[in-house]
Formats: sequence, C-alpha cells, structure tokens
Amino acid sequence: MSRFWNKRVHDLHPYVPGEQPKVADLIKLNTNESPYGPSPKVLEAIRSAASDDLRLYPDPTATELRHAIAERFNVSTENVFVGNGSDEVLAHAFRALFHDDAPLLFSDITYGFYPVYCELFGQPFQQFPLNERFEIDIEDYKGPCGGIVIANPNANTGLTLSLDQIAHLARQHADRTVLIDEAYVDFGADSAIELTKKHDNLLIVQTLSKSYALAGLRVGFAIGSPELIEGLNRVKDSFNSYPLSRPAQAGAIAAIKDKEWLDKITARVIQTRETLIPALRQLGFDVLPSRSNFILVHHPEHQAGELAKALRERSIIVRHLSTPRIQNWLRITIGTDEACKRLIDTLQSILSGKS
Amino acid sequence: MSRFWNKRVHDLHPYVPGEQPKVADLIKLNTNESPYGPSPKVLEAIRSAASDDLRLYPDPTATELRHAIAERFNVSTENVFVGNGSDEVLAHAFRALFHDDAPLLFSDITYGFYPVYCELFGQPFQQFPLNERFEIDIEDYKGPCGGIVIANPNANTGLTLSLDQIAHLARQHADRTVLIDEAYVDFGADSAIELTKKHDNLLIVQTLSKSYALAGLRVGFAIGSPELIEGLNRVKDSFNSYPLSRPAQAGAIAAIKDKEWLDKITARVIQTRETLIPALRQLGFDVLPSRSNFILVHHPEHQAGELAKALRERSIIVRHLSTPRIQNWLRITIGTDEACKRLIDTLQSILSGKS
Repeated sequence: MSRFWNKRVHDLHPYVPGEQPKVADLIKLNTNESPYGPSPKVLEAIRSAASDDLRLYPDPTATELRHAIAERFNVSTENVFVGNGSDEVLAHAFRALFHDDAPLLFSDITYGFYPVYCELFGQPFQQFPLNERFEIDIEDYKGPCGGIVIANPNANTGLTLSLDQIAHLARQHADRTVLIDEAYVDFGADSAIELTKKHDNLLIVQTLSKSYALAGLRVGFAIGSPELIEGLNRVKDSFNSYPLSRPAQAGAIAAIKDKEWLDKITARVIQTRETLIPALRQLGFDVLPSRSNFILVHHPEHQAGELAKALRERSIIVRHLSTPRIQNWLRITIGTDEACKRLIDTLQSILSGKS
Repeated sequence: MSRFWNKRVHDLHPYVPGEQPKVADLIKLNTNESPYGPSPKVLEAIRSAASDDLRLYPDPTATELRHAIAERFNVSTENVFVGNGSDEVLAHAFRALFHDDAPLLFSDITYGFYPVYCELFGQPFQQFPLNERFEIDIEDYKGPCGGIVIANPNANTGLTLSLDQIAHLARQHADRTVLIDEAYVDFGADSAIELTKKHDNLLIVQTLSKSYALAGLRVGFAIGSPELIEGLNRVKDSFNSYPLSRPAQAGAIAAIKDKEWLDKITARVIQTRETLIPALRQLGFDVLPSRSNFILVHHPEHQAGELAKALRERSIIVRHLSTPRIQNWLRITIGTDEACKRLIDTLQSILSGKS
C-alpha cells in the first residue's frame, strides 16, 4: 500500500510467472520453453540488426513482419497484429474487444493471466469448471457474454477443442469476440486461423515463445478480421507506438519464414512427449493426453508439492501451480530426450525412496 | 466503428508518431533520432545475445540492467523500473500513479502522448498554456491535482525548468506523484534524479532512444522511491511480465555502462545545435533556445506547412505538428553537421525563391 497508488492499482493481483533461476546446470522444465534453440537464420538476422540503424525507430506498423505472417498463414497483412509477446497482444485484446455489459467467459483452469487482465481493465468475468477429465464443455458457454477466451490447447492441461466446436462458439456469439489463444498449437493441435475467414468475430493469438524457441525475443501475433485488428491498433497507438524493436522484428521475420526449422523442432518435442507419457504412466502417474509441449501429471500416492521439492533438490524444476483443483498436479515441460530420461530416472528413485 | 470494439476504445484518439519513411537518401530530421550510431559495445552485446539462449525467457525483473542503471545514477536497484521504451514506462505511470479525484496537470504544448494516456485510462486532466515565450509558469501548478507531468526539457520547445522549480513542485504536492519526463535531458539540461532522494513523490523517466542512439531497441527507465517503483511493477505484472527481450536487456546494459560514448555523441549534437541556431536566425527564423536534440523554429514571412513541404520536395523531412499555437512552427531534429549545412543551404535557396 502506498498513498501514491491510485485505487485502480491497490486491488491488483499481478500474475506470477514461472521461476527463471539464475543458477546454471538446472534442468528447467517449468516454463514451457523449447529445449532446442531457434533457427540459425533468426540468430543471423538479429546479428545483422545490430547495426547503426538502431539509432532509428523501428517500423511502428511492423509491415514486413506482418506481411511474412500473412503469407505463412494465407491471410492479408491487414488481418495481422503483432506485439511484445502474446501477453501484450492478449492485454490489448482484453482492453479493446471484450464488452463489460456481460461477463467474459473462460474456464477455471487455463492461462493464469486472463483473470489478471480482467482485473486490470475492470472486465467482469465468469469461469466455468472443466469437467472431471479437465475438458471444456462448450455447452457452458452458450449464455450472454462480453466475449469468450479459450486457450487451445488449454494452458496447464494441454487438452484441445475441435475446430467444429470453435466454429460453433463463433457462430453462437456472432456479435462478440471469441479469442482462441493458440500459444501451444504447433505441438499437434489444429489451428483455427482458417476459420477467421468465415467468422469476423474470431481472433487467433499465437506466440513465437514456445514452438519457435524465441521466449527471449518477445514476439506474439494475432490474426482476425480487419475490424478486430483495427481495434487492437487503436489501443496500441494509445499505449506504445513502437512495441517491437528492430532486432525483434528482424528475428521474427526470419523465424516465421523458416517453417522447416519449426517443423523439425516441434516434431522432436512431440516424439519425446509420446515417449515420456507412457514412461510416467508406468511409474503410476496419471497423465493428461496433452497436445502441447508440457504435460499435466498426478501421482495417486504422492503429494505434488513434495515431488516438486524432491525434484528441485535433484536439480530438476517443474511447475507446481497454486490453481485450485490442480494443486496436487505438476506441469512438466517436455525437454530433450536426455532431460526427460533424467526426469524418469530421478522420479523412479524418488518414488522408490532410494535416494 | 465496429460492433466488436467496446466503449473504451470507440472514443480513443491514438497518438500519431512522426513519419518513418521507407525510402532511402532522405535527411530525416523529424523524429529526434540520434545522427550518430550507438556505442560499438552495444552492437557487440546484442550480437552475443543472438544465441540459443533466446529459447529461454528473459529475466522478468531485468535485474542486471536495473543494477547498471542504479550504479550509473547512484541510486539503489529498488529505485529503478525499466520498460519497452519510455512510452511503456509513461503508460504504466499514468495508469498506476495519478489519481482521478483531481485533474492531472500538464502544459498545452508538450509530449502529445500525455492526453492520449489520460483518455486511455480515464484520467481527468488540465492543460496550462505556456507563456508567450513558450515557457512553463510553475505558479499555474499550485492547485489541487491528481498529479503533475512535465517534460524537462519540454517536448517540442526544448526549454527547461530549473531543479529548484522542480523541487518546489514536489514539495507543494507531497502526496501526489510529480513525473519529470527527461527524454531529452542529456543534451544540456540538469537531471532531477538526485532530487528523488529527498522527494519520494518524484518520478524521473528517461529513454535510451535519443541520447543513447537506441530508438530501435525500445528501452526506457524510471527512477524514484521504492513505493513508486512498486506501483509500476504491479501494473507491469498485470500486463506483460517480460517486457524487455534478451537482446534489449543486453544492449541496454552495454549502453548504460559506456558513458564515454554517450558524452561524446551528445557533445557533438550540442555543438551542431549551437552552430545551427545562429545560422537559422541569420535567415530570419525565430528559434527557441533549446537544450534538446531538436529546435522549434518559425519564420515570420513563411508558412511552416509550406516550408516543410518545400524541404520534403528537396529530400529533407522536418516535423510540422498540428498542435494549436505551434501550427506555424517547425520542429527540427539536430542532425550531423553535414545534414544541418544541407538544411541551411536548402532553406536559403527556398527563402530566396531560387530553387
């Protein structure tokens, strides 16, 4: 509390990101980062951007990057918005595109930033519990609303809705924005980008932080109808005209263009995941059938917090979330094959009480 | 207008940044960029940051950068906040630290983003006209207020308040945040950073975009009491936990540490400015005594819009602002000696009607 803070700030409950430890030699499976590096073409592009041109402002509209994204996804440049990480894109969407005459709808277990944005912008919201298998029931979402936001695959569970279900929601709420947060879509789920051509109320948000291995570059984007994109631009230009630096624009263009690299590293993550899941089940874990670069796991005989602590003591960090209903679950990022083998070996020794 | 935009967005009047032309060979004196490049150490640091580590999130608290800033300005790390350009820092300050029970006070001619932020956050404001020589009269600012924001040197005029005047305002409004926007301070004005040790309501905002020649990197910072900084952090962590990319943090650290480079390039800009001002006066221009990297000029016999157009036709871009009272003035960024000589020669030929 401070007398200098206004009432808008007193009541905030800021988001707490996963730990970014400063010690080396940890196996970091807690913030859904890529175990592999970004495309070498990205590194080359950033190095080229480290020039005297940094004295000049970047292109405020990031036209070349938006063009590259448009080309990749077979839409027009006017359908594309970019921002400083998908978090900034999401924040602008929450501010611009949801109405406060009815609650914004989302699930009880999902990306933890959604309720934080609602609080920041004074947006009422209602959270529907996932079912007992942690799935979204779209029947919950049929009532009047100020908008809908769904992470697909869902954050923390890795489970997906089908494109038919998403199209159904978009049709059902044709006058409200339906935001699909596809942060994890490249790890085996179907993108709804194609549906934006039929549904002018559908906004798809993606990020370069996960599948493109660029969490450190801070680039996210949205694809939707020109009306939705213009709403986002109005907010951006009332907040920060130049959100993406020159190195970020240059690196992101190279990343979007190198689809081969994206396909290669996401395929490796998927392969590791499909090996890890049965190995964990063999150890007695309940594992949700994730289509993401993380899995949500639970052991019937062990407390999640204690397992996380025991792993941490053995230099492996996983995410133990405080979200109700999954407090006894762990979210584990898919690492390299080697890291995942080490995880299995370490868990085996913890569970058998041998170490 | 779109049915998808909420009422908060309909009424926005977004900021319009200066033109960033995509054609080459223009002399660009319109957006107050540095005519010289950044420190070579900055370029080296960004190149080093172009590594596989980009797969990892950056430090959300930018501790090393904040530490470097603290060391440079003889404050503590807890006194420092960093953001994606000073625009983002300003936006968070407007959201967090001004109260809406009374108007925020600022001058009629100043940075054009201030009223835009007020609109975005629903902050009432009152603008006091600068006097006839475009100076701020601090007597105007003595009434009840939700806060005060002053650009020092002032945007568009380049004129300054003294540190005594700033300390007076901070004392007079001890329960309200007084924000001093020092975007241009390194070009010959005095920073009020030292005053933050006495006045816990004083927030100083600076940017790396101008004097550090890093407009393309998007880094700004604020210095103030831990209470003010914590207010900014609460908003940041409700909006975007990781605003500064790894290349931005690495480059900014190198920039802050290379004070020698900063001193060298700002001294050159100041020297050019002090040559340019008398040369323009010789051509009949009225020139405000700027302490910034730009000057505000006016010719009694020529329309500013027409001069800007004539310069543009001769490949020189200056800024013709639509702000009332300075619609017949031009804001000219200080370029290299060569660019400024070309400006003088071109103006001479335009004024004599010879070209």
